[in-house]
Amino acid sequence: MLDVCLLGTAGMMPLPYRFLTSLMTRYNGSSLLVDCGEATQIAVKKAGWSFHPIDLICFTHYHADHISGLPGMLLTMGNADRTQPVTLLGPKGLKQVVSALRVIAPELPFEVRCVEITEAEQVFNLYGYKITAFKVNHNVPCYGYTVEIGRQGRFQPENAQKYGLPQRYWGILQKGTPVEYNGHTYTPDMVMGPVRRGIKLTYCTDTRPADSLVKNARGADLLICEGMYAEKEKLAKARQYKHMTFYEAAKIAKDADVKELWLTHFSPSLVHAADYMPQVRSIFENSHLGKDGKMVVMNFPDEEDSEEEET
Amino acid sequence: MLDVCLLGTAGMMPLPYRFLTSLMTRYNGSSLLVDCGEATQIAVKKAGWSFHPIDLICFTHYHADHISGLPGMLLTMGNADRTQPVTLLGPKGLKQVVSALRVIAPELPFEVRCVEITEAEQVFNLYGYKITAFKVNHNVPCYGYTVEIGRQGRFQPENAQKYGLPQRYWGILQKGTPVEYNGHTYTPDMVMGPVRRGIKLTYCTDTRPADSLVKNARGADLLICEGMYAEKEKLAKARQYKHMTFYEAAKIAKDADVKELWLTHFSPSLVHAADYMPQVRSIFENSHLGKDGKMVVMNFPDEEDSEEEET
Repeated sequence: MLDVCLLGTAGMMPLPYRFLTSLMTRYNGSSLLVDCGEATQIAVKKAGWSFHPIDLICFTHYHADHISGLPGMLLTMGNADRTQPVTLLGPKGLKQVVSALRVIAPELPFEVRCVEITEAEQVFNLYGYKITAFKVNHNVPCYGYTVEIGRQGRFQPENAQKYGLPQRYWGILQKGTPVEYNGHTYTPDMVMGPVRRGIKLTYCTDTRPADSLVKNARGADLLICEGMYAEKEKLAKARQYKHMTFYEAAKIAKDADVKELWLTHFSPSLVHAADYMPQVRSIFENSHLGKDGKMVVMNFPDEEDSEEEET
Repeated sequence: MLDVCLLGTAGMMPLPYRFLTSLMTRYNGSSLLVDCGEATQIAVKKAGWSFHPIDLICFTHYHADHISGLPGMLLTMGNADRTQPVTLLGPKGLKQVVSALRVIAPELPFEVRCVEITEAEQVFNLYGYKITAFKVNHNVPCYGYTVEIGRQGRFQPENAQKYGLPQRYWGILQKGTPVEYNGHTYTPDMVMGPVRRGIKLTYCTDTRPADSLVKNARGADLLICEGMYAEKEKLAKARQYKHMTFYEAAKIAKDADVKELWLTHFSPSLVHAADYMPQVRSIFENSHLGKDGKMVVMNFPDEEDSEEEET
């Protein structure tokens, strides 16, 4: 299962009670952060999540509201006794931006590794997460991220029995390690069923509607997507500053056939956001407003099924 | 009068409900900020004060918790339609640090002017504030600031009458402009009494006890001073990291004969700070804990007197 927390929902500048947009996930002891604006570290503390296991910080782009909190975050991770390397992932220019910002965080008790995205679409397998970075359409190079947790096939005991493999080898094969028995080598694929659908989460801020977003969000269990403006008359502004309206985001969710949409990255001028949701839901029904600290535990599909059966 | 707001009281890292230590003042339409850590801009918004009139930002030193909020602050001031130049004042290295941090705030609708302090004690007259920067004792070059609002002498009508000056010239002289009358030049000093005591505020964080602090805080109406640690057993830690305990700050206040002390820059580990105040007050009676958003209006001495008479 994947724990998901939308740390904040603000675009442009942090506000009292509205932190800058940032995503945090926890999976198998490893935490991932997407974007780290000013005060994101306060949002992490408010969520009650730990700084220590943050292995990876992905950046959508280098506008200040998405990276201004990095020096403080790194220092706070150091104060949380982090000594393992931390990986930063982002568009080209990452090394230069990080190096400049570290003028106020020059000494850290861990190594900072910068990985720059070089393709319009690129897959990274890091810390158990399959991360697809895909370029979107903002006024500077900007990427969305799809985070997937893979799930192997079910163990097929009938296959193991067919080969006459004693049960003591079954667990080893299930964990992905080949075994030798009676002079033969048995590999996991011989006893495991087809790879099953895992968990798919897509996160995207700061873009006009983009084909790459629809493509990479396709079938996602959850799409967290920017909706800078709710007022219909702000479409011109959305076009000018390369952002989206709530309705454009809902259209993306519909076109990508996702299961659920959370809106985020709200303009500082946005108030009474809920008033606009009926119309958003008329485009894509399972649409929700993001809220600071909004959390969900995403389970593998049949884990969810079994939970539903229990209730 | 001078409006004073202690925007935050945290040292080292911002916490939920405890912003990083920063001071803001308003005087005669011009606002001054001392230090600008991560999320200081949120604290300004919470205080309900405006970004537009911030003419001057002074930095005590360049540890992240005192300057990490600068890029976001400058951008937010730009979004508040600031177009007038902004002056930044701080220890040597200011230009380099600001230039590095502006990697994420390269374009602003106003000019940023950096003024570096070159002496151990140096006076700057800026925007109606008399600012004395004085070097203290931290593990990097660090300055405290005394902010004074000067007050001219009282107008002496008997002098004006002695010269036979018509009343229409009195106000002009009071405002500091010489006048010509009957072929003679009359200057303000001819009709104004001796300069009166104004308002004196001293602000100092991140130091061991220092003679320069006692000297520059002497007789201040208000001393806002770091007290990183309250627990007596943390004196060794205070010495190691070049900070002060509550009791050391109280001793400074006593030695400098200030009128009032506010403690600030609390360690993240500090809880139940009020429990330590009786002992602090046994050293310096008019000691108070700083609180996020704590405000006071500082009046000229006889303004206070007349208020007191009214009550």
